[in-house]
Amino acid sequence: MISRLHDPAERGFASDNYAGVHPEVLTALTVANEGHQTAYGDDVYTARLREVIRRHFGEQAEVYPVFNGTGANVVGLQAMADRWSAVICAAQAHINTDECGAPEHVAGLKLLPVPTEDAKLTPELIDREAWGWGDEHRAQPRIVSITQSTELGTVYTAEEVAAVCAHAHDRGMLVHMDGARLANAAAALGLPLRAFTTDAGVDVLSFGGTKNGLLLGEAIVVLNPRAAHGPVFLRKSSMQLASKMRFVSAQFLALLEGDLWLRNASHSNAMARRLAEAVGKVPGVRITRPVEANAVFAVIPRDVADRLRKRFRFYTWDEHTGEVRWMCSFDTTEEDVDAFAAALAEEMTG
Amino acid sequence: MISRLHDPAERGFASDNYAGVHPEVLTALTVANEGHQTAYGDDVYTARLREVIRRHFGEQAEVYPVFNGTGANVVGLQAMADRWSAVICAAQAHINTDECGAPEHVAGLKLLPVPTEDAKLTPELIDREAWGWGDEHRAQPRIVSITQSTELGTVYTAEEVAAVCAHAHDRGMLVHMDGARLANAAAALGLPLRAFTTDAGVDVLSFGGTKNGLLLGEAIVVLNPRAAHGPVFLRKSSMQLASKMRFVSAQFLALLEGDLWLRNASHSNAMARRLAEAVGKVPGVRITRPVEANAVFAVIPRDVADRLRKRFRFYTWDEHTGEVRWMCSFDTTEEDVDAFAAALAEEMTG
Amino acid sequence: MISRLHDPAERGFASDNYAGVHPEVLTALTVANEGHQTAYGDDVYTARLREVIRRHFGEQAEVYPVFNGTGANVVGLQAMADRWSAVICAAQAHINTDECGAPEHVAGLKLLPVPTEDAKLTPELIDREAWGWGDEHRAQPRIVSITQSTELGTVYTAEEVAAVCAHAHDRGMLVHMDGARLANAAAALGLPLRAFTTDAGVDVLSFGGTKNGLLLGEAIVVLNPRAAHGPVFLRKSSMQLASKMRFVSAQFLALLEGDLWLRNASHSNAMARRLAEAVGKVPGVRITRPVEANAVFAVIPRDVADRLRKRFRFYTWDEHTGEVRWMCSFDTTEEDVDAFAAALAEEMTG
Amino acid sequence: MISRLHDPAERGFASDNYAGVHPEVLTALTVANEGHQTAYGDDVYTARLREVIRRHFGEQAEVYPVFNGTGANVVGLQAMADRWSAVICAAQAHINTDECGAPEHVAGLKLLPVPTEDAKLTPELIDREAWGWGDEHRAQPRIVSITQSTELGTVYTAEEVAAVCAHAHDRGMLVHMDGARLANAAAALGLPLRAFTTDAGVDVLSFGGTKNGLLLGEAIVVLNPRAAHGPVFLRKSSMQLASKMRFVSAQFLALLEGDLWLRNASHSNAMARRLAEAVGKVPGVRITRPVEANAVFAVIPRDVADRLRKRFRFYTWDEHTGEVRWMCSFDTTEEDVDAFAAALAEEMTG
Repeated sequence: MISRLHDPAERGFASDNYAGVHPEVLTALTVANEGHQTAYGDDVYTARLREVIRRHFGEQAEVYPVFNGTGANVVGLQAMADRWSAVICAAQAHINTDECGAPEHVAGLKLLPVPTEDAKLTPELIDREAWGWGDEHRAQPRIVSITQSTELGTVYTAEEVAAVCAHAHDRGMLVHMDGARLANAAAALGLPLRAFTTDAGVDVLSFGGTKNGLLLGEAIVVLNPRAAHGPVFLRKSSMQLASKMRFVSAQFLALLEGDLWLRNASHSNAMARRLAEAVGKVPGVRITRPVEANAVFAVIPRDVADRLRKRFRFYTWDEHTGEVRWMCSFDTTEEDVDAFAAALAEEMTG
Repeated sequence: MISRLHDPAERGFASDNYAGVHPEVLTALTVANEGHQTAYGDDVYTARLREVIRRHFGEQAEVYPVFNGTGANVVGLQAMADRWSAVICAAQAHINTDECGAPEHVAGLKLLPVPTEDAKLTPELIDREAWGWGDEHRAQPRIVSITQSTELGTVYTAEEVAAVCAHAHDRGMLVHMDGARLANAAAALGLPLRAFTTDAGVDVLSFGGTKNGLLLGEAIVVLNPRAAHGPVFLRKSSMQLASKMRFVSAQFLALLEGDLWLRNASHSNAMARRLAEAVGKVPGVRITRPVEANAVFAVIPRDVADRLRKRFRFYTWDEHTGEVRWMCSFDTTEEDVDAFAAALAEEMTG
Repeated sequence: MISRLHDPAERGFASDNYAGVHPEVLTALTVANEGHQTAYGDDVYTARLREVIRRHFGEQAEVYPVFNGTGANVVGLQAMADRWSAVICAAQAHINTDECGAPEHVAGLKLLPVPTEDAKLTPELIDREAWGWGDEHRAQPRIVSITQSTELGTVYTAEEVAAVCAHAHDRGMLVHMDGARLANAAAALGLPLRAFTTDAGVDVLSFGGTKNGLLLGEAIVVLNPRAAHGPVFLRKSSMQLASKMRFVSAQFLALLEGDLWLRNASHSNAMARRLAEAVGKVPGVRITRPVEANAVFAVIPRDVADRLRKRFRFYTWDEHTGEVRWMCSFDTTEEDVDAFAAALAEEMTG
Repeated sequence: MISRLHDPAERGFASDNYAGVHPEVLTALTVANEGHQTAYGDDVYTARLREVIRRHFGEQAEVYPVFNGTGANVVGLQAMADRWSAVICAAQAHINTDECGAPEHVAGLKLLPVPTEDAKLTPELIDREAWGWGDEHRAQPRIVSITQSTELGTVYTAEEVAAVCAHAHDRGMLVHMDGARLANAAAALGLPLRAFTTDAGVDVLSFGGTKNGLLLGEAIVVLNPRAAHGPVFLRKSSMQLASKMRFVSAQFLALLEGDLWLRNASHSNAMARRLAEAVGKVPGVRITRPVEANAVFAVIPRDVADRLRKRFRFYTWDEHTGEVRWMCSFDTTEEDVDAFAAALAEEMTG
């Protein structure tokens, strides 16, 4: 029996993956345990997950559970891409900045990053790189990848997603959505998941679980079956096939059969709003981005950040400007937020 | 709250990854839960795991938890390989037969498979492919990869591993061990883990957890620090870096702090021996491989196999010969074994 | 003006790529020179080559000139392969033994090599690896690659090629032919090129020029347009697109507009037969393979080989058996052959 | 004997690879022909080239002839890169815009493109992407790649190259130079080749031949032997190893033994200056870039460009602005230039 090595009272705002597992998800692991189930996804929990995913995303949706977000993104992109395809994305996209070159390393994909203000692509921004089809010297733009909610805590409206999709489809391109924080976007928009994915024209989705209370688990959801080739093989050859998949699927069931996915996301969004409101009142703190999901970005003096960080973990987002990022998670409490805001106020005047 | 969808009384001998999670491992997840811990491995459970791994494998050992066995193998091999390296392995090696080309796809590695009788390499067998260094037309043999226990349920003795390592090192090659079932080998040999790994000269190890009672988790263990380059970066770019790593590490702690790893492996080995003994007495059943770990291979009539499979899941190993494989796991019971043997006897005479 | 640094009287039997350029090919370079032509293949020589190739291979044939044989093979295979495909080939195939892992490195392809006696695949040999479709754990057999004439100087009959193709196609696979020495095969068979390629069912061909008298140049010929995807893009992204392509195409025109391709190949084949006949009479020399194209394989005492090699370059094919390989080329003369046979006889009795 | 299919009087300003082969280079092919020479670079012409390259680039320089510029770039970059490395380059760099993703496809490399005005990197521009070492989430900046002369016809001074190299080296990075038009830069600077390569601190160079009068041929030149690993193997596995290498090397000897490299480059530079001067006088024509090498960029009305293009081939560089590019080559004549300028003046007033 291992003993607890950490202090659960230790809290922070560094990332939504610093949090642990939601109790209902832990319970689901116990429920799915014992006895024998066919490995690699031919189990009853994964079968049920297929149904539940179709309920959320439509009858054509097909789900492929995987281990992590990078895996979901890169397997999904491969399934949509020819060997000579390029992917248009925001310069701030996780696939471009935080995956250690996995799209290039695993899949040989060329990314065509477009600088953006708010990490959101628009038809106009897409057009900066959407050209050159038929020219063998240029990796062929084939996929537009957008992140929902974005790396800057902003959220595409359903209309904005639809505009991106229409624009891409008109030019023979497909649309991938990195939904590591998809639930936060749904909560922010007050819309069902399909309203800004399937119904808006997204072809393939990375659906995040880990940042929304799972121990570990993401899912590729193919919304347009004609857009993805060989996901089953690519998941295996890209090392994202879980043998005891029932436990990944059971976690997703805990999220998606009821409304846990929405409760968790709504909560973390609410905590971010509370945080923004509280710190926004502290003189000298400047909120730098619209707080639409579960992230708050702000500029505070560097020495304040350094002192504050000793009490609550968080990251500097931009070394040049000193902008910091505070993330809320499903287990962030009002007390956490208030304590943090108080500490910030204290350090600002310290 | 999700409801149980499966019947835990359903049992089989298809694979040790059809089993679930050992209760002590599930408990470890609860212990490690709550509060915030730094993501991506900078947490206290992973720190403790580093110590525990050194206790088992020696002071130089460095551990990198990953998601699955293919991931452990391919990240480990990349860390040992130049871009022009080749890997000598048994033709039956999992990396050659069961990873959908992941070593080639993710890492661009060329495998040099050597046909073997028992899935074990020897210096003589290695020499079939260990040549051509300096010749730019030949992918350069750089790594010998062996599996312990093997895909055929056989086990290398410590001396056999040492002979492979000495031979490889003499020729400027490194040794990788795929230890998806390393604990079963240790139990079979009655030796501590390091006796036939570190002490025998193995450079990099894939240490299996999933097949020995974890929910999900494998580990790359670098035994020779000079043999591996950039494992931290390769783990990320190869999509094997868990964000909430504390939960992978805590599972390994549940296995390795005490003797759970050995209890589980000894038990599944014992069940395999019991199974072999029981079915060996059934007229018409021929055991085809030495039963050294937790697998039993046998030839039985095809119609018997087909009928028996309706009662207990298992795989045909070789379509041509009709050889079947029966795997035991940590949760296989004596009753399971006896019921299976009885069923087999019944079907043989049916 | 550079000066001649080599002695043209130096001759050997090491490889058909030790020879230089046929004079008619050199002249073609001069003819195609001067003035401006659109780069990257949109020139009049490449346009003419397209027509000439269709004359030889049929109306559907499409040609893509490239730099070298490895390039032709790997670009062609990629155009036929999904990212999860595997290629069945003879263990002796050039793609398996002599390309430094280029199929794996550039294309992530898994090869499934089959041991053969004579470097020729048959339906039975193909079936050793042609299985497992739909099983995500196995790289999916999608292509059968055969070499014509083979690495052992043997030649598939048109019927043998047709049998391979029918077998592969029946199983949903495609057929690639490595024709680095295709002309030698045609000369040996006394058949037009299409008789044992297009008409036998080959889907994609690597058509060799360099070993048949070009300075440098090979061509991918897509015989079945439904079998190849994106060859134009793959040629560029795999670094096989010549800017001044007119000069590669003009060389091929020199070969293929008239009968130079056949004259060169018939000559080198005839020299190999003459050589085999001559050395076959020398006591102690054992010819080890049927001499069907332009290669002679033999076993001679090692010390004889060592002494002989000082007078004429050639390679040891198999270090274990001492088997050597003697290749004839378009510029091998009867005098070369006779001098070599005499030298061999001398050394044998020396 | 093939017949001439093109009209040598057809001239244009589309690209320096629309030109043919310099007569002295064609002669070199004849000189190197006949007799047998060891394939794959173990021939006397390649041996001599090694010496000549050392004369130009210093005693440590090692040359590896290859087929084309993309090949030189991608093999060179691989030799400098770990599997997790990233390459900082100008957004306009050929490796980023014109190689159909070859660095990503063949080598799995991540590029970090930096927007620039003039296609030239500076220490400040490099710093936009030179950060994050040790962070496993970020592909590790390891190489700075600069193009000399640039894709925009500009030239780095020796001091500018030295500043880039010092900056990169200080940060533990290496410097790659894409010298597809290196000779043009040398001619522009009036400096020996080593002055702004070896002596400025460049580690690995792609040395262009094709655009300076060769039929086909580029060379990787390793200037800093500690900066490149396995170039010999990478050249083969990346499909850039010529079997009849003597003919690639002999072409380079024709360029480099005497001053042909400089004559050709000086001439094409002079033609570009003459062109700029002539068209600069035409009302309504705006030269948009400094004319430092053999390229002239200008903005002219679109309809003028369309009409002019029917008489002389050239490319539109930027569809948005209507900027066009006119390249001069070793065989551009004063008459060509004057005729073009006259035609332009005519069309402008037409």
